Amino acid sequence: MIYPTIQSERLWRSLMEMAEIGQTSGGGVCRLALTDEDLAARELFVKWCEDARLTIRVDELGNIFARRAGSDLYAPPVMTGSHLDTQPLGGRFDGVYGVLAGLEVVRTLNDAKIETTHPIDVVVWTNEEGSRFPAGCMGSAVFAGQRDLDVMLNLTDADGYSVKDELKRIGFDGPEKCGNVSIKALYEAHIEQGPILENASKTIGVVMSAQGLRCFWVHVSGIEGHAGTLPMDKRRDAFQGAARMAVAIDNLANTFVPHPVITIGVVNVGPGSRSTIPGTTSFMIDCRCPDEQGLNELEDEIKIICKGIAKTRGLEINIEMISKITPITFNKDCINSIRNAAEKRKLGHQDISSGAGHDACHVSFIAPVGMIFIPCEHGISHNETEYASPSDITAGAQVLFDVVVGAAKLE
Amino acid sequence: MIYPTIQSERLWRSLMEMAEIGQTSGGGVCRLALTDEDLAARELFVKWCEDARLTIRVDELGNIFARRAGSDLYAPPVMTGSHLDTQPLGGRFDGVYGVLAGLEVVRTLNDAKIETTHPIDVVVWTNEEGSRFPAGCMGSAVFAGQRDLDVMLNLTDADGYSVKDELKRIGFDGPEKCGNVSIKALYEAHIEQGPILENASKTIGVVMSAQGLRCFWVHVSGIEGHAGTLPMDKRRDAFQGAARMAVAIDNLANTFVPHPVITIGVVNVGPGSRSTIPGTTSFMIDCRCPDEQGLNELEDEIKIICKGIAKTRGLEINIEMISKITPITFNKDCINSIRNAAEKRKLGHQDISSGAGHDACHVSFIAPVGMIFIPCEHGISHNETEYASPSDITAGAQVLFDVVVGAAKLE
Repeated sequence: MIYPTIQSERLWRSLMEMAEIGQTSGGGVCRLALTDEDLAARELFVKWCEDARLTIRVDELGNIFARRAGSDLYAPPVMTGSHLDTQPLGGRFDGVYGVLAGLEVVRTLNDAKIETTHPIDVVVWTNEEGSRFPAGCMGSAVFAGQRDLDVMLNLTDADGYSVKDELKRIGFDGPEKCGNVSIKALYEAHIEQGPILENASKTIGVVMSAQGLRCFWVHVSGIEGHAGTLPMDKRRDAFQGAARMAVAIDNLANTFVPHPVITIGVVNVGPGSRSTIPGTTSFMIDCRCPDEQGLNELEDEIKIICKGIAKTRGLEINIEMISKITPITFNKDCINSIRNAAEKRKLGHQDISSGAGHDACHVSFIAPVGMIFIPCEHGISHNETEYASPSDITAGAQVLFDVVVGAAKLE
Repeated sequence: MIYPTIQSERLWRSLMEMAEIGQTSGGGVCRLALTDEDLAARELFVKWCEDARLTIRVDELGNIFARRAGSDLYAPPVMTGSHLDTQPLGGRFDGVYGVLAGLEVVRTLNDAKIETTHPIDVVVWTNEEGSRFPAGCMGSAVFAGQRDLDVMLNLTDADGYSVKDELKRIGFDGPEKCGNVSIKALYEAHIEQGPILENASKTIGVVMSAQGLRCFWVHVSGIEGHAGTLPMDKRRDAFQGAARMAVAIDNLANTFVPHPVITIGVVNVGPGSRSTIPGTTSFMIDCRCPDEQGLNELEDEIKIICKGIAKTRGLEINIEMISKITPITFNKDCINSIRNAAEKRKLGHQDISSGAGHDACHVSFIAPVGMIFIPCEHGISHNETEYASPSDITAGAQVLFDVVVGAAKLE
């Protein structure tokens, strides 16, 4: 059967109206979790849901579930959604696209007067960005049993305000328990946040997996010395050792299969004086790869590289793992339904692995989950200039409609 | 003729007594310029000079000149000395050795009841370290016309106290004009602050020259990106470019003739987030070489290296010179007199270039100057563990005695 077509202009208009809340001078959005801006965005979302005759429930962590009832009162819901919070200088699409594409799904069903067997919940997860409160995907992770509720409620921002108090202040400390919900399936639409689809001229990314991550501190110690008096061959320069490690690790990332991404974004050189040979250098390695075996091999290689260079140059080294995330493989049926929907709509698509973490990754621990990516311009996100074209926005929402309605079953 | 022998124990005792002023828990000294500790050290020095019947003069920048009169009232003085201030965590020998070795010269002349034709001035220069007030060799540089007096007097420390006010507070805002003095010769004894003499098992370094310096900021700009989503081959990672420049510059320093020393001691990576590909990296290059031609070639090579790597990796680069010091060649007669004195005393010696800047370097612009180096343990200085052995201390002071008295002429 032919499913109805979503309304491109309504979706785009909703995105642009939502983007006015927390709008920045550079054309982006600053809507940190549980601030007045987040409250305003939640209120606008709830108003739109009420206009669409959805029933609103809020759980104790502020996650919002807007339900379009199904014909079977006992059937588990099909969920779709994402988050409304942004980075301090975020864009107009990251997160909010998944929420409003979900809203467009139920609006389209309403227009077509179509009933589904399963209810459909459009969900807004609390604090996905982890920017104000340092725990990303907070709402979805607690919902899926991946983080502890009380620990999250007591988390504070840089000014000492707690999640609990801020939820209460904005009136989103809901009565529902967080989690313990049966789910038929969950689909999340999201901008790719990378350049792969754009470079391949594809409209739909069928997300197969989400990369795992291992993050390390590497602490290199040498011997401080006078920049003017210590001959080159007598030096134990911690930064020169670290620079060689950084280059070797970068070369590793460029040649390793399957292709990982490795980033060194934090580098501290001590004592940090122009005329003193560095005695210490610490740097952080953020290493991501779609499979666990690859991560194991990369970890081994990185350690061999760093220890080898340290030994050759007479430096001490200490490698400390500070974060470890297991790669996630999405549900095969969900993946297939997305690929089939893209095929049927004649949309260029390709399989892709998610480089970033998403709410859907956490929910995948307790339910069948699929993710739909659309291109974003130059792969840029977490940036005021983040952009996705109206046609890609439409295409992704149409695929979302098809898979959500497919899972929820037409009556 | 055979010159008298200096008193090793008296010199060592004086060094250890002076080291109690500003003593740190780690066995070093903190005696920042124009602090109460510097005042106490100056007062002890003046007391010792008065005990040795020297006449004290203080100039408007706090430089102290303690004169042992010569028989010829119109003959220009032979000067010797160094500084009493230290780094925040300095040692017991840097600077103070040159001052107290000078004092030992006149004490030995007193003991032997020897008169010289030329007067001998034991000098203490103000703020050699440039640690509290950011202008190294302040006293000697103004004395030699290399820095401006008023600019220096108005220089402030991190708390806003000016040199002028602090000189007044400690009572060392002397009545004499700074500079405009005829000098027969100046000799400064100093620890090497490097490992060359120790490694060669030599006691006396005959200082031929002081390295020139060029210091640059290199600002590298790439494009920030998401550490999880941007494939390796799409990145313009400023830090990875900078790391390759640092390694190439280090390799250059290790192979270039004449042997320079190049240090990268300050590295700033932006935005400094674990999950963001660095968009900017700035680092400082401190490049020193004994001759100007070498510095010119190094500057050219460094620019070629940095620009080449930037171009290859799609990075922007901006290289900014922030400091330039011309190499200094010491006076041939002074050099010869030091070498001859070491020979006569049967002390192992070698020619050496100074890696650090010294008061004597500035005075060399207006007078014949020579410097005597002695080894310091493991080449370590600007450190609480800085150490020079009593026998090397003695040897250096004996050579200083011989050359100062040789220049001042016996009656």
